[in-house]
Amino acid sequence: MSELTILTYDWVPQGPRGYVRDVRLRWACEEAGLPYSVSSVRFKDRTSPGHLARQPFAQVPALEDGEIRLFESGACLLHLAEKSETLMPRDPVGRADTLQWLISGLNSVEMVSVPWWFIGLSAPAENPLEGWLASRLGRLEAVLATRDWLAAGRFTVADLLMADILRVSRLRAALGPYPALQAYVARNLDRPAFRKALQDQLDHFSAADAARAR
Amino acid sequence: MSELTILTYDWVPQGPRGYVRDVRLRWACEEAGLPYSVSSVRFKDRTSPGHLARQPFAQVPALEDGEIRLFESGACLLHLAEKSETLMPRDPVGRADTLQWLISGLNSVEMVSVPWWFIGLSAPAENPLEGWLASRLGRLEAVLATRDWLAAGRFTVADLLMADILRVSRLRAALGPYPALQAYVARNLDRPAFRKALQDQLDHFSAADAARAR
Repeated sequence: MSELTILTYDWVPQGPRGYVRDVRLRWACEEAGLPYSVSSVRFKDRTSPGHLARQPFAQVPALEDGEIRLFESGACLLHLAEKSETLMPRDPVGRADTLQWLISGLNSVEMVSVPWWFIGLSAPAENPLEGWLASRLGRLEAVLATRDWLAAGRFTVADLLMADILRVSRLRAALGPYPALQAYVARNLDRPAFRKALQDQLDHFSAADAARAR
Repeated sequence: MSELTILTYDWVPQGPRGYVRDVRLRWACEEAGLPYSVSSVRFKDRTSPGHLARQPFAQVPALEDGEIRLFESGACLLHLAEKSETLMPRDPVGRADTLQWLISGLNSVEMVSVPWWFIGLSAPAENPLEGWLASRLGRLEAVLATRDWLAAGRFTVADLLMADILRVSRLRAALGPYPALQAYVARNLDRPAFRKALQDQLDHFSAADAARAR
């Protein structure tokens, strides 16, 4: 098996710590028992030609797997899911179920929740995406009121992604009307693989603080 | 090969005609020469329990492929891409390249462009997502100024999706500062498979008008 390398920033400000999307890839590798290492691009070099050649939208994470290089956390998660039945069932029906729910996290939920969050940074009082977000969360609540996991009757990479989308602090604080979503997020974040991934990310950025202070 | 069936609405108002996302699946099948049929859910039944069991966010399209059922256009496109080298190369590097660019359409471009469009419906003057959209389009412009296709050196399903995202009328009208994106959209929309898919969707909804008028 080739070596997996997750690319993230060397350092970020306090705000995004714990939420930088390399945590999704760390979490997936931890769930699947896939060995990996972490490499860094300097935060201040994120718009450099070298990084843009690697990640054209000036973001992280990216993934290396031998000769394969991938950006976009959703694409990296699907690539990792091909390596492990823990992340995605091997049968075609369970696989399709996992795929559709992973994509719905990216394109039906996060497509509303991230812009909602972004607008809320500057204009928290009257967010034009409030109603749309409530509609999407209401639909997801109805699904998760009937089952514990989104796809295939058990934890998959689709849950990993959806829980990571929903746990963003201001969004999680808005889950009051959605008890099934609250329980779902808690159920996912209680997994040892998530806790390790989160702590490892926090330690990675803390180590950069310590290096800067020297 | 099992029968592919694309699910769309029986009818929609004039505004979304030509843009309902079943066009993405039709286009992919036309490019790949995959036979398919089209079935309809009644537009007025889109929040019925029956349709929500099929598409939990009360949208279309969905895809049936034998025992496999999928919602989310992005998931359906990836499923179709597995069936045809026309849509996605078979080698691991080309495949990963296609995957990352398809996901970037869904989660880096459309995650900004669709909320930007949505907000513009009611408040066109001061859109809080304007700067973010310009940033994403600028990054994509830089990529497409250097090559004709996003992934693997040739047309793939990632182009099909990205072009469908960029062609939405108000967005396409805003592409003035991005000549490479303008040319890219035109290059994709000039493909016979797109023109057939688009016409077939328009005919599908027109037929419903005719049936209603009887």
